[in-house]
This record gives sequence, structure tokens and C-alpha cells, in this order.
Amino acid sequence: MLTVNENFLKLPGNYLFSEIGKRVAAFRAENPEKNVIPLSIGDATRPLPPTVIAAMHRAVDEMATLEGFRGYGPEQGYAFLREAIRDKAFQPLGVELSADEIFISDGAKSDCGNIGDIFGTDNVVAVCDPVYPVYVDTNAMAGRAGEYDGVRWTDILYMPCNERNGFMPELPVRTPDIIYLCFPNNPTGSAANRHQLKLWVDYALKNGAVILYDSAYEAYISEEGIPHSIYEIEGARECAIEFRSFSKTAGFTGTRCAYTVVPEALKFGGVSLNKLWYRRQCTKFNGVPYVVQRAAEAVYTAQGYREAKETIAYYMNNARVIRTGLQSAGLSVFGGVNAPYIWVKTPDGADSWGFFDRALREAGVAVTPGAGFGPEGEGFIRLTGFGDAESTKQAVERLKAVL
Amino acid sequence: MLTVNENFLKLPGNYLFSEIGKRVAAFRAENPEKNVIPLSIGDATRPLPPTVIAAMHRAVDEMATLEGFRGYGPEQGYAFLREAIRDKAFQPLGVELSADEIFISDGAKSDCGNIGDIFGTDNVVAVCDPVYPVYVDTNAMAGRAGEYDGVRWTDILYMPCNERNGFMPELPVRTPDIIYLCFPNNPTGSAANRHQLKLWVDYALKNGAVILYDSAYEAYISEEGIPHSIYEIEGARECAIEFRSFSKTAGFTGTRCAYTVVPEALKFGGVSLNKLWYRRQCTKFNGVPYVVQRAAEAVYTAQGYREAKETIAYYMNNARVIRTGLQSAGLSVFGGVNAPYIWVKTPDGADSWGFFDRALREAGVAVTPGAGFGPEGEGFIRLTGFGDAESTKQAVERLKAVL
Repeated sequence: MLTVNENFLKLPGNYLFSEIGKRVAAFRAENPEKNVIPLSIGDATRPLPPTVIAAMHRAVDEMATLEGFRGYGPEQGYAFLREAIRDKAFQPLGVELSADEIFISDGAKSDCGNIGDIFGTDNVVAVCDPVYPVYVDTNAMAGRAGEYDGVRWTDILYMPCNERNGFMPELPVRTPDIIYLCFPNNPTGSAANRHQLKLWVDYALKNGAVILYDSAYEAYISEEGIPHSIYEIEGARECAIEFRSFSKTAGFTGTRCAYTVVPEALKFGGVSLNKLWYRRQCTKFNGVPYVVQRAAEAVYTAQGYREAKETIAYYMNNARVIRTGLQSAGLSVFGGVNAPYIWVKTPDGADSWGFFDRALREAGVAVTPGAGFGPEGEGFIRLTGFGDAESTKQAVERLKAVL
Repeated sequence: MLTVNENFLKLPGNYLFSEIGKRVAAFRAENPEKNVIPLSIGDATRPLPPTVIAAMHRAVDEMATLEGFRGYGPEQGYAFLREAIRDKAFQPLGVELSADEIFISDGAKSDCGNIGDIFGTDNVVAVCDPVYPVYVDTNAMAGRAGEYDGVRWTDILYMPCNERNGFMPELPVRTPDIIYLCFPNNPTGSAANRHQLKLWVDYALKNGAVILYDSAYEAYISEEGIPHSIYEIEGARECAIEFRSFSKTAGFTGTRCAYTVVPEALKFGGVSLNKLWYRRQCTKFNGVPYVVQRAAEAVYTAQGYREAKETIAYYMNNARVIRTGLQSAGLSVFGGVNAPYIWVKTPDGADSWGFFDRALREAGVAVTPGAGFGPEGEGFIRLTGFGDAESTKQAVERLKAVL
């Protein structure tokens, strides 16, 4: 008889955003006159850049002609896009990649999850706490997490990121084989500098571990000296895979395009991870829509780049408004400088769901309780700059008034 | 130290289409004056239907406005598309589905591969021989195939499909837990009737097995009485998952949209596969581009449907030209009536690569050697109707002249 993957049955319900939705809906039903402003949203809200729209229209027109029609494309992505990424996203950082080290995909979420296919199930996984839940859940599905004890998985190494360590994970006591790092970080908004990343690269090289580096928010880095890619660090090609995305860079959350870098120098036991990932993608994936790849390519034109940057500046201005507004009200506020996320300590040591309820009821503002990202998130809330500028200002004023 | 998934290292090279490409390229280099016509192509070549193009343009325009912009959509797909599929693809067959049983994805290849995530690695897998290689390779990657002995995998049950059994798999001696069926079939072009499918549904129900039913080519069925969906068979909701695609139905091979049906009644050991697949998709997938979902929706308008059917008729006319042409030359020809694939017995018992070389050298026609789809494909070649009509006619005349 068919057996199911028992690991799925160990997964706890994924209640964070549905619970938020439920509580907001209940509040709205009871208070129909009140306008609830979401500062909880982790999704683009501004239109696609005009240059991207124009490129997509042109590609759609090509698909209408016998000469321009494109059927199956290369599973790894069209060379025009991989070469644009090589030349425009990495070369300016001083990172020389080959186009064959870049794999176009439908999303960093897919890649972060699917990458596990090429690893043994016996590897020990380390994640930051708080953390983007996909890293943990996909490893649990693959059998690398052990059992869920109601708070944590028994076999996952959690690396606390808190005020004490400046939201930077410390080298774990037990040695992991797979290390997830996300900088600029979701949810804390922290960004790692060169020195901090170098520690991790050296550690991974010394221990034969792989770093899975999620840099989905690199376009939000505003400070000098913060690496945009882990490959800016010497030795990273021998130990790191990097995930990047057009989602937050150019508003592609509903248009779906991302890419993953697997360097040719990345080998374990003599086996090339680049070749394994290529084989995985050729067997279980059929590429990204041609029209979407042309849209992504347009982000690298001078005008497309300017337009994408304008939208990022819009979101980052919201982040600044939130950050400075709540700081001036006496709250401890982190992030929001190199990331669209602002990580705020709840006042008077309130627990994160308690403060969520208070913000909703007293200020009509929806926030994300930090505890939803892991036990170390307790006592924090996550706010984001992805909203409307006027509403964001208003939300901050409302929060300040009730603090 | 990191370990890789050792199962990947057991995979043989996937040389079929690269070997074809290599031999064709070498022939062209030696014979630059000769025009090689491909009858080997398994990809759409005609433009997208005008109604689909118009819908995609409209959706692109929406993404350019603040009101129309769409960020993350539901992982399972927008309700507008799932409801259109429910009402237009299944209701006319007398199959009543709920929209929550339909999961939109970027491709049947992805789904056929990823579905393995929700099953235990101890299940016994049965496939037809010849077979679409993705079913076998993805199970090998997951550790369900055993060892590769140079021809077959030790733990896979191969069900020979040959002239003797009319290219219909017979119930295997050893009982499988996972049964892959593809009708209309790639590569043989055979189509299963109601009685033949009922045997499999009853067998699966009796043995607690799941049928993974690939009906990517259902739109090519021309004969009455051939089921378009396995759910036309009583009991199938309790034992079958169905994969479908817009790729060959509406020319979406480069536009990427498909869907998978996982009925709510499908339970093993009390566990709902619908819930497991939903969890899998929510965790490792982020949905299909909004513009692509709007394009797919347009296939279900009266005009879009007519246009898609015209293209299918174009390809099926090519299939008829190939089928009748080679039949009149005395060859044994199968398929091509309910499928775009024509499965041809090589003349004089030639092996399939031998005939490939002869067709290329003497007729300037590229075919696909049947042996590339499995040992039972030896002595056959696969031809397809996806080419240009004039070239297809010419290729058939050229082949006839050298037989």
C-alpha cells in the first residue's frame, strides 16, 4: 500500500499569517468604521516599472508571431538573462561569474526549498532564530529536522539572533553541514558586514559545510561597506550558494522570477553541486516564461534600473518614517536602514501577540508578531516599508499616540 | 561535512536529445547544402492564440497600475483560473470537481517530479516501457529506483508496451504502490479506452496504490469514447492524481502553466493527499505569474478555445500526413490519431539508432530513436506532428523515397 512522507505529518500548522488575518478580520467586523492600516505586509505593492512593462508587452507580441514564438526554453534560463545578471548584478561588485553558474527560476522560495534535493538527508542544518520559516519547514519535510517539540525541531541547530549579539548569529557549538544565512535579514532587518560574513565563510570552509545565502533583499542595502553578495568574500565560491530574486528588487512577487548562483568551484567529496543542481533543474523544472525573462532583463537597462531604484527608495522612505517615528517615541528599533523590515522591541516587555492586539485595537494598525518567526522573536514585532506612504505616516502617528 | 544526495550519482547521462542534436549538427556541417527537416520535435511551434495574447497584454497593463498590480498570489493559483478549469475542462466530461482540488503550477514536468515529495521513499514504482524519462529519473533521485544496471533500474517495475499488447501496459506481477500512466501516450501515441482505464482504477483501489495519471495530451483525442480524464472512471477519485498542462493544449511550452488535480477523496492511511500537496506547494512554491494565469484563463473563452483547437488541428493534420504517408509505404505505424505522436516500426528490423542515421543521411529527416525511451522502444522511432505543414509533407515524401 502507498505510504506517505511521514515527515509531513510532523509539521505544525503554519498559523502566523492566517492568525493575523483572522484577528484583523474579526476586529474589522466589530469596528466597520475604523480603517486598519497594515504595516505587516511583506509584499510589493507598487506597480511594475514602466520599462519592465514595455519589455513584457514586446515579448508578448513576439509570442504572437511564427518567427518570434518561443517554446521550451533552456531549463537554466535564457543566456540573455543569465549574461545580464553576470554583467550587471555581479561584475560591478567585482564578482566574476560564468553565466553557467547562474540558474533562473520562478522564485527564491522554490529554490530555497528545492535545493535540499541535492543534499543527503543526514546533514545537520543550522538556521537563525528568528527565521524565514521556509528553511526549516522544507528540511523538516525532507527528514532533516527530527521531531517538533512544540517550539523547536530536535535536530535543527538554532542560532539565536537577539539584541545582545546585534542580531548576528554566532558560530554554533555543534558543527552544522548546511548553514542558512539571510542578509539583509528577514525579519530583523540586520545586515552583515564583510568581517561578519568572512567569519562564516572561513567556518564553512574549515568544516566542509555549505552556506545557503539568501540575499533577496540586497537591493535595499543603503550603507557603504555592506556586501551585496557573499561572493564578495574570499573563499565563498568554495562554500556558498546564493539565492536572489526580482521579487523585492523590482516588484516581481506576482510575476515570479529569481535566480540561484551555484559556483563551479563548489565541490563536496569531489562532486560538483553545480552539476547536481543543473541535473535537478533539467529533470524537475522547465524554465521560467519567456515573457517574464524578458521582463527581468529590462531591470538591467539603465532606465529600468532607475525605475526599480525609485520604487525601492519609496519603500525605504516608509521604512525611515517608521524607524525614526517609533524611535522618537522611545521604542528600541532595529533594521530599516539596509532592509525594508523594521524590528521593534515591544514596549514594557509586552509579548508579541499581546502588543499585536493592542496595536490593532487601540491604533488600528496591523503588525507581525515576532514570535511567529521563532522563539527568539518573542518580545518583538516586525513592521515593513511596503505600504502606501501616506498610510504609513498615519499608522506611525497612531501608534505613537497610544504608546 | 556536507553529504550530497548519493542517488544523483547513480543517474546515467541523459543523452537522447543531446545525442540527436550532436549527430544532426555533424551531418549539417558535412552537408551544408542539405535542409534537414526535424520530425523529432516534441514542442509547440505555432504562435499563441490571439485571444491568449490579448488577455496577456491586458494583464501586463494591470501590473502597470497601482490598482491593478498583483503581488503574491495564492500558491494554489487564482480562483478565476481554478474555477474556469473546473467549469470548462471537467464539467463537460461529467466530472464534478471542487476548485480546491485543482492546483495551478508552472508545468506538468515540475508536478510529476515534485509530487514525489509527499510519498514515502519505500514505495514501489511502476512505469510503462517506453516511458517519459522524468517519471523514472525523479524517483531515482528520491531513492525509489535502486541501482541502474545499464539498461534498467533494479527497483522500478517496468510494464512493457509493445505491438503484442497494443501498447497498453498489463497488470504487473509484483504489486506497485505508485503507478504512472500517460494517455494519450508519449511516445507511443496510444490512447486508453474506458475499459482499459477501469482495469487500472480497480487494480489500484484493490491494492491501495496511487495512479499518477499524465493527461498532458488529452486535447489531441479525436475519437469518441476515449476518456479525457481518469476521473471519468468510477472510483478514480479515491486512487488517482491527474496532471494536465496548457503546454500542448494551447502552445504554452514557453509560457509555463499547468495544473494537477488531487481529489479530496484521495486518502491513504487516513491522510489526505490533497492536504499534503497543498502544504508542499505552500512551502516550496509561490504560484504562477498573474499574467500567465490570465493567459491560461483565456483558453477557456469560446474564441480562445476555438483558436487553440485550430492549432491542434494543424498539428494533427501533420500527424495524419505522417501516419498515412508511412502506412502507404508499407510501414507499421501506430498512434497519431488521438495524440501528436506517431510510433513507427523501423523497416527490416533495423535498430532505432541505425534507422535514425539512415533517415538523417539518406532523407535529411531527423527522427527520435525509440530506444531512447526505454528498452521496449528498440526497433521503433517516434515522429511528431509539431512541425511546419509544408516541411512535414516534404519529410514524409523524402522518407518514402528511401524506404
